[in-house]
Amino acid sequence: MINAAVAGASGYAGAELVRILAGHDNVSLCHVGAASSSGKRVDELYPSLRGTVDLTYESISVEALCDADIVFLALPSGEAMQLVPQLLGNGQRVIDLSGDYRLPAPSEYPEFYHHIHTSPELLGKAVYGLPEVFPQEIADASLLANPGCYPTSALLALIPALQQNLIEPDGIIINALSGVSGAGRSTSVEMSFCEVNENIRAYKIGSHQHIPEIQTILQRTAGVDAPVTFIPHLVPLSRGIYSTIHARSVWGLNAEQLHEAYLQFYADAPFVRVTNRIPQLHDVVRTNFCDLHLVIEPRTGNVVIISAIDNLMKGAAGQAVQNMNLMFGFPQDTGLLKKENADVY
Amino acid sequence: MINAAVAGASGYAGAELVRILAGHDNVSLCHVGAASSSGKRVDELYPSLRGTVDLTYESISVEALCDADIVFLALPSGEAMQLVPQLLGNGQRVIDLSGDYRLPAPSEYPEFYHHIHTSPELLGKAVYGLPEVFPQEIADASLLANPGCYPTSALLALIPALQQNLIEPDGIIINALSGVSGAGRSTSVEMSFCEVNENIRAYKIGSHQHIPEIQTILQRTAGVDAPVTFIPHLVPLSRGIYSTIHARSVWGLNAEQLHEAYLQFYADAPFVRVTNRIPQLHDVVRTNFCDLHLVIEPRTGNVVIISAIDNLMKGAAGQAVQNMNLMFGFPQDTGLLKKENADVY
Amino acid sequence: MINAAVAGASGYAGAELVRILAGHDNVSLCHVGAASSSGKRVDELYPSLRGTVDLTYESISVEALCDADIVFLALPSGEAMQLVPQLLGNGQRVIDLSGDYRLPAPSEYPEFYHHIHTSPELLGKAVYGLPEVFPQEIADASLLANPGCYPTSALLALIPALQQNLIEPDGIIINALSGVSGAGRSTSVEMSFCEVNENIRAYKIGSHQHIPEIQTILQRTAGVDAPVTFIPHLVPLSRGIYSTIHARSVWGLNAEQLHEAYLQFYADAPFVRVTNRIPQLHDVVRTNFCDLHLVIEPRTGNVVIISAIDNLMKGAAGQAVQNMNLMFGFPQDTGLLKKENADVY
Amino acid sequence: MINAAVAGASGYAGAELVRILAGHDNVSLCHVGAASSSGKRVDELYPSLRGTVDLTYESISVEALCDADIVFLALPSGEAMQLVPQLLGNGQRVIDLSGDYRLPAPSEYPEFYHHIHTSPELLGKAVYGLPEVFPQEIADASLLANPGCYPTSALLALIPALQQNLIEPDGIIINALSGVSGAGRSTSVEMSFCEVNENIRAYKIGSHQHIPEIQTILQRTAGVDAPVTFIPHLVPLSRGIYSTIHARSVWGLNAEQLHEAYLQFYADAPFVRVTNRIPQLHDVVRTNFCDLHLVIEPRTGNVVIISAIDNLMKGAAGQAVQNMNLMFGFPQDTGLLKKENADVY
Repeated sequence: MINAAVAGASGYAGAELVRILAGHDNVSLCHVGAASSSGKRVDELYPSLRGTVDLTYESISVEALCDADIVFLALPSGEAMQLVPQLLGNGQRVIDLSGDYRLPAPSEYPEFYHHIHTSPELLGKAVYGLPEVFPQEIADASLLANPGCYPTSALLALIPALQQNLIEPDGIIINALSGVSGAGRSTSVEMSFCEVNENIRAYKIGSHQHIPEIQTILQRTAGVDAPVTFIPHLVPLSRGIYSTIHARSVWGLNAEQLHEAYLQFYADAPFVRVTNRIPQLHDVVRTNFCDLHLVIEPRTGNVVIISAIDNLMKGAAGQAVQNMNLMFGFPQDTGLLKKENADVY
Repeated sequence: MINAAVAGASGYAGAELVRILAGHDNVSLCHVGAASSSGKRVDELYPSLRGTVDLTYESISVEALCDADIVFLALPSGEAMQLVPQLLGNGQRVIDLSGDYRLPAPSEYPEFYHHIHTSPELLGKAVYGLPEVFPQEIADASLLANPGCYPTSALLALIPALQQNLIEPDGIIINALSGVSGAGRSTSVEMSFCEVNENIRAYKIGSHQHIPEIQTILQRTAGVDAPVTFIPHLVPLSRGIYSTIHARSVWGLNAEQLHEAYLQFYADAPFVRVTNRIPQLHDVVRTNFCDLHLVIEPRTGNVVIISAIDNLMKGAAGQAVQNMNLMFGFPQDTGLLKKENADVY
Repeated sequence: MINAAVAGASGYAGAELVRILAGHDNVSLCHVGAASSSGKRVDELYPSLRGTVDLTYESISVEALCDADIVFLALPSGEAMQLVPQLLGNGQRVIDLSGDYRLPAPSEYPEFYHHIHTSPELLGKAVYGLPEVFPQEIADASLLANPGCYPTSALLALIPALQQNLIEPDGIIINALSGVSGAGRSTSVEMSFCEVNENIRAYKIGSHQHIPEIQTILQRTAGVDAPVTFIPHLVPLSRGIYSTIHARSVWGLNAEQLHEAYLQFYADAPFVRVTNRIPQLHDVVRTNFCDLHLVIEPRTGNVVIISAIDNLMKGAAGQAVQNMNLMFGFPQDTGLLKKENADVY
Repeated sequence: MINAAVAGASGYAGAELVRILAGHDNVSLCHVGAASSSGKRVDELYPSLRGTVDLTYESISVEALCDADIVFLALPSGEAMQLVPQLLGNGQRVIDLSGDYRLPAPSEYPEFYHHIHTSPELLGKAVYGLPEVFPQEIADASLLANPGCYPTSALLALIPALQQNLIEPDGIIINALSGVSGAGRSTSVEMSFCEVNENIRAYKIGSHQHIPEIQTILQRTAGVDAPVTFIPHLVPLSRGIYSTIHARSVWGLNAEQLHEAYLQFYADAPFVRVTNRIPQLHDVVRTNFCDLHLVIEPRTGNVVIISAIDNLMKGAAGQAVQNMNLMFGFPQDTGLLKKENADVY
């Protein structure tokens, strides 16, 4: 039994963390922090948790977090880095769900996150928390950078093929569709119901902060520079990311070979399913699964990969708990694979 | 040809007004005012108007409005009353889409609108703009209070029966379902996509500002006090109000008699349709129609009335233009009944 | 450990049953039957169940069901009664989710269900499965009629007040809003996306088959005839029923008294929550909870009750499992209250 | 004034045609045919047309269509070809909204439309109705093949660049997102509300019937073979197609040059808008506009084109009327550019 705390527990990802941790057999959730909701009960903000989470939001501070063996930070970008150095100094382990420790180069923060990094010396120490790819590093991590939702979806789809030279590093295109919860509990006009409903929009073409994250990890895992074209779109639904990914095949690649390579790569991964039919978001929403489907496009011989995840589960809170399980030696799917999790639609 | 101006033209109701007035054969739209969007083109905020509305938002002032024969105020409650006395003093006619001049008693403003009325002397002068009920007063009005969306839906459903003593004044119940645009262009978490999608909630039970408005007009038209139970609900769609209204029948009322009474009452009303089948929101959305359906519930003999409108058209901008048409002697449906208005779904 | 079977397991309610039973600690799910999907795997129809349900649909017959201690029938109305007499003859216990055994009088079936009842002698034997009201009868039942979704929502809201003479039996009005899954896996144009999206419609006013069900149980529990006005509406969301219920107060009733009466009535009910704030559908969706909120409308002194449930859980499959738990002596919430069930939105 | 008839007028595209033609100043709509709805009034199926369309569906036959100068066929694929030879024989002009005359080679019909073509001799005679590209041929056409919704969106985006050698013909990728009305008035489970809501799915990867249509027209206009990767997706909204298109730039291409090329190409096109900001579906829904936005992706130098249309307007009925206008010498935007058409959201 370990003690866990969540700072930033009033947003969607933070509240999912609270929900999962409250039901985790090896965890005692000792503290939930939220700046603006301090003093309110969790089930006042999230009435669906009435009867299952009996906690009150407290204000966020290093002191308040000090009893935790593991601290989850679900804070806006730029705020985690205010807490991490002290937490690590206390000997606590940290899982940061923001982008604050995902990029290796401090120089990229001003461009993509619009602020200066205040603890650049820790960037090299942070482990990138993609459990299917870095399980050993994760087990040993004291500072874990939990991947972004889009990068999770894209990297699980691309790494096996790129690492095994089944696709060319040039010309990778990621078209990704995201539900609205990816933007968090929002007060912007742009995320209001009437502006999203019956609408689609692409955004941040060529400038999204997840581009360097994807490129960094592709380089790290496959050893090649792969400049990606990444086009995120907002679509009118609450949860899920659906990525349609294009890459040029190496000469002679066939469908069986491609499918088999993924089956093997993910043979021990409890949360990646390589599917025979085209996935739907419904197949993964409210689960920690990533469904991958591989196609050789008949006209061009090129590769199309469909990747579907739930942005709050495998794209945030679920993956964070999966990482915690690895860090503390629990079975990877503890607290994440209850049958109740899967809804029939 | 008359000159029209709109203050508060960047909200949903204001933008609908701009759209309708820009296509109205008898109107020259000379000014669109919007506090926060001043300097932006209308089609920057509403790109769907590109090519049809060639105007730029200006800041709001009595001076900027001075060329208009008719001024539409689509401002938040409490702001219209800052402008109206001067506009009337200039001899201009005003259509106010807020609640500022809908209630006769200044004493009700603090309770229902949370502010003190600053021009109570004008409350008695304002004409309530329900064209099917007060056509003559509207024609002569200089200050017109455009009805609220819920009251429009409820009053058109109730007035014929109550006035002709077909239903009892006691025990009237209005259950109303509203799309989200009724709340305006919102930045609140409550109106964000994820909080509204796949959700329903009742709100302001017993305290909604439209209750005294409905009761006032029922009293004025039927001569009886009718305390109404009004329960508004928010449902996950953009446009439309669907009211299901209950009233006790007077002794011996039958369905034909009831239906016939409504047909006669609305014989000359171009925008009220008394229907033989249960209306759907789709039947009226994006139109200025109000569809009414009358039922004698078989078990109880009581009356059920279904009333469906588009909240931005008949519930706001469309009705405002209908009122303007009456005020200036144009045919009532000018600019409001183009066939292009009706979408097939 | 008991053996359970589900006939009609390919519809939404049936698939929810499969999902819950597959995760139930005291149940072995031995057979899932589905006429049209026979031979397909469950996770082919419901890919979200991949990895959690490893079963194949078989055709439906009394023989195929013979190993089950408890048979759930999630079949269209009229089909359950073809199987029930033989199943009971075999000594098996049956939970029927259709309306086939909910009404006491065979004469009501032609009017409300459009067919003749073929085993009218069993109607008196069937127990109505509302666990908060009939726990003892349910424990002893061999044939259980699982309540309809609308009646569950309405009866839990009305029974305490009516039984304790806090409201008048005359003048009860139930305005209910249902998500689309209530209609099942549908192939009708009326339930296609474009016809439901951005739409609302009332339907079956005065003729819905749930009217006699509600009236029967009100009579049975409160000993009075209470003719109800019931207006169901279809709204554009997938799951949930939101009922706004009106009743006349008896003289002198106050809010505290009303609230207290419900708290006491449901003191031992794990799935009914009497709330201090107005419920939202989000509070109950994907759970087995019914949230009830009680209001004395200030203008009229009458009672308004808001009742929110998930139509597939408390309104169908969840309640069926709750009933099974009572029938076999398991804790009432076994398999139904895992923390993973509650999503944060 | 010309006489027009619509066969297949009860589907979504057909009903949009009826709506537009009923409001067209130069058209008398003499006949609306619909197999299954024969005998019903149009406004019984589409109550939003009450008061604007006073017509009754009749059964479909060449005789019934004989008074029309122009016959619109909005029939399922394979049915138009049963009528076209006789209609042309009568000297009537025909606009076919199906795919029956879009492909030049009869041999492609079995593969992509699953039937044999019964009038292959007319394939060479049919004019492809993309008004911005083939205005002269359209003016002279007797048999016009109205483009598919996806091809309209893709071709308007690609033709200028491909024709002027700004992009490479190899490696074109079209990711397209479609609302549900594109599938017509459907009775399939797949298009039912619960299966589409909160879901996304790609479909017909590499096998969609619009692939040869796109490739044929690219070849015809640019003189090169351009094998396209086309991935259609279904998203939970009613109307609109949003295409995100990728192509490799020719050496040295810059953003200004690209933007300028499109501005010039569409200088005289009233319904194509080359935009400076990323389009949203809201900008074009319920209009006949196609919004195009051009980007040089900074990391790769390649071209990304966003193309947004309404699938029932520019993607079907609106474009068909635009074609009719060209065929009969009316201004291209007659009946299509009323200000009432544009909704503010």
